[in-house]
Amino acid sequence: MFNFDFYNPTRILFGKDRLGAIDTLVPADAKVLITFGGGSAKKSGLIDKVKAALGRRQVEEFCGIEPNPRYETLMKAAAIVRSQNIDFILAVGGGSVIDGTKFICLATYYDGDARDLLKFGFRHITSEVVKKVVSFGAVLTLPAAGSEMNSGAVVSYEHGKFPVLSDMTFPKFSILDPTYTFTLPKIQVANGIVDAFVHVGEQYLTFPVAAKLQDRMAEGILQTLVEIGVTTVNEPENYDARANHVWSATMALNGIIAVGVPQDWATHMIGHELTARFGIDHGQTLAIVYPALLDVRKEQKRAKLLQYAERVWHIENGSEDEKIDLAIQKTRAFFESLGIKTRLSEYGITADDIPALIDQLKAHGMVALSETQDITPEISQKILEKAM
Amino acid sequence: MFNFDFYNPTRILFGKDRLGAIDTLVPADAKVLITFGGGSAKKSGLIDKVKAALGRRQVEEFCGIEPNPRYETLMKAAAIVRSQNIDFILAVGGGSVIDGTKFICLATYYDGDARDLLKFGFRHITSEVVKKVVSFGAVLTLPAAGSEMNSGAVVSYEHGKFPVLSDMTFPKFSILDPTYTFTLPKIQVANGIVDAFVHVGEQYLTFPVAAKLQDRMAEGILQTLVEIGVTTVNEPENYDARANHVWSATMALNGIIAVGVPQDWATHMIGHELTARFGIDHGQTLAIVYPALLDVRKEQKRAKLLQYAERVWHIENGSEDEKIDLAIQKTRAFFESLGIKTRLSEYGITADDIPALIDQLKAHGMVALSETQDITPEISQKILEKAM
Repeated sequence: MFNFDFYNPTRILFGKDRLGAIDTLVPADAKVLITFGGGSAKKSGLIDKVKAALGRRQVEEFCGIEPNPRYETLMKAAAIVRSQNIDFILAVGGGSVIDGTKFICLATYYDGDARDLLKFGFRHITSEVVKKVVSFGAVLTLPAAGSEMNSGAVVSYEHGKFPVLSDMTFPKFSILDPTYTFTLPKIQVANGIVDAFVHVGEQYLTFPVAAKLQDRMAEGILQTLVEIGVTTVNEPENYDARANHVWSATMALNGIIAVGVPQDWATHMIGHELTARFGIDHGQTLAIVYPALLDVRKEQKRAKLLQYAERVWHIENGSEDEKIDLAIQKTRAFFESLGIKTRLSEYGITADDIPALIDQLKAHGMVALSETQDITPEISQKILEKAM
Repeated sequence: MFNFDFYNPTRILFGKDRLGAIDTLVPADAKVLITFGGGSAKKSGLIDKVKAALGRRQVEEFCGIEPNPRYETLMKAAAIVRSQNIDFILAVGGGSVIDGTKFICLATYYDGDARDLLKFGFRHITSEVVKKVVSFGAVLTLPAAGSEMNSGAVVSYEHGKFPVLSDMTFPKFSILDPTYTFTLPKIQVANGIVDAFVHVGEQYLTFPVAAKLQDRMAEGILQTLVEIGVTTVNEPENYDARANHVWSATMALNGIIAVGVPQDWATHMIGHELTARFGIDHGQTLAIVYPALLDVRKEQKRAKLLQYAERVWHIENGSEDEKIDLAIQKTRAFFESLGIKTRLSEYGITADDIPALIDQLKAHGMVALSETQDITPEISQKILEKAM
């Protein structure tokens, strides 16, 4: 097991009818900005409920944080926070709204060109860089990204998606009410399952470091997602299934399964380019790339893939290679059982499109990916070819 | 799944050679009190290393926090904190030292008779009750109690052990270096495994509430403890085994497997009386009571016991009752494989001693125990008789 640090001060309020907690968790004299995405949070009445929970506090609204939130949009919100002297932001939405809000919190009082904050990669932005950060809480409406209980964000600018990490951008609290996700379109629920599943995979399917408990916990999340995936897509109001989906997605990326283990993230980095170039949903890009990546990286991941085959998919018979191949097949079949296509060609992308994607990866510095930093652009190309 | 709140702001620094972090985590101008137990932390040189890590800060020492820390001892430390204007406490030890330090932090500036703080039971002590609380960090030397990453404590007073809970007594940080536990006596390592195992059991072997992920995570801790238990007792310097022991013990009681599920704790409450009356180690009391309790509570816990038999012990054949009985036998055999005796009679206790233990339970108000509050003193008596 590697040495590790773990820190996660976000307060979680999980379950039905938890909005009442907002009144005790948001400072009584705060001027609040509610950030959200499109009209669905408004139309469903959730924004009104949140405003009611804020009582007599002065409240402003910022609507329009798009999927894969864009720098320009977020800077508009930051300008409002500054000009209106907002003390606290309440993000109502999924990963995009919460990610975007984290960036707003960092950018508002950053003393310089906020595009600097996109250049830190996986290094954490400290209080030496940003001296004053706005606080925020979240009301989750989409179980997928895990942003509700971590301090990371991904921001889109020009043709790139940029990670932004800081210990200062944990939500103060997040309200996770599974019933708020009942009205989501099926595809978003399915994307959310894939997103959580691949988050776990990126932290688990690497190489063994005798982190037995972390492995068991990662396997536990994967098994839970497999158990409830099809049900929660097809029975949106099945509370138990959705509650397990919501909590699994949060636990997949709150840092707890990441402690002391190697991490991959190549699938995410390659997937980001598919979103940036073709606008494919994040979850879909992962469903396309991940089975292909596992196939190409069979040797590097052999020990963990075998463990995955046996413990998650209960594959007991066959040679090592047969077990691994079957586990990868079952992974792909699981994504497809949720209604997600897993082949590039099914999204209208041809082999001719691959070189431009590889150029993008290079342009974004993604030339040494994976837990062993040995996925070169050539290997990324092989992965994309496998994904056709 | 029940509604739940989760909050745990303790920063964990895990692994080899982490003491250097103290210098950044303890306020630079703090006057520090180091609390510890007997002489072993001193003799091993750990206290000196901690002092070195504190650099030029003014440091006082308080030695002598005993196992099952006593109110009177802790009040002596609180008097020192007050009279010496201590700003920060550093607890160096296991659960007793850390639990005791939490009580010191609460009691120092409590405006009243500090014995009041023993009367809250499982209710949390808030900032309305204790207005000023001293901050503390911990350096763990014994993997068992989980106190290093939660806000709870147990304090002994007269013939009772009293739970003390407060959101204000999370350690600011805890340093978990498995090598600091290499010199522990075998019995303490074995007790620590049992303690962690039963902590998980108290949160898992209750009744099902469709909390699939919490179940998987609890099972993951149990499986890990079973896998590394005998090894870490017999090979104290096997880093991987001990690292998994340390992290499993922390994860067993940091709240993460408790979210949204019923909790039992009857074994702990009955065990406390055995410690209070006969001075039996906490871990040993759990090893005595738990298999007997599972046996007596077979009907109430049937569904989860079956799941436990199948998932943790991989028992696939036999009737339901055979599977459950075998799982309980295997639990007992596991404790015994660590060198812990599991029968009251093996500790020199006879059936004649049981009525006095039941009187103690009654005197401490422990008359409606378990996840369904239906373990009466009569049932506790049955459990103790089964444990003979």
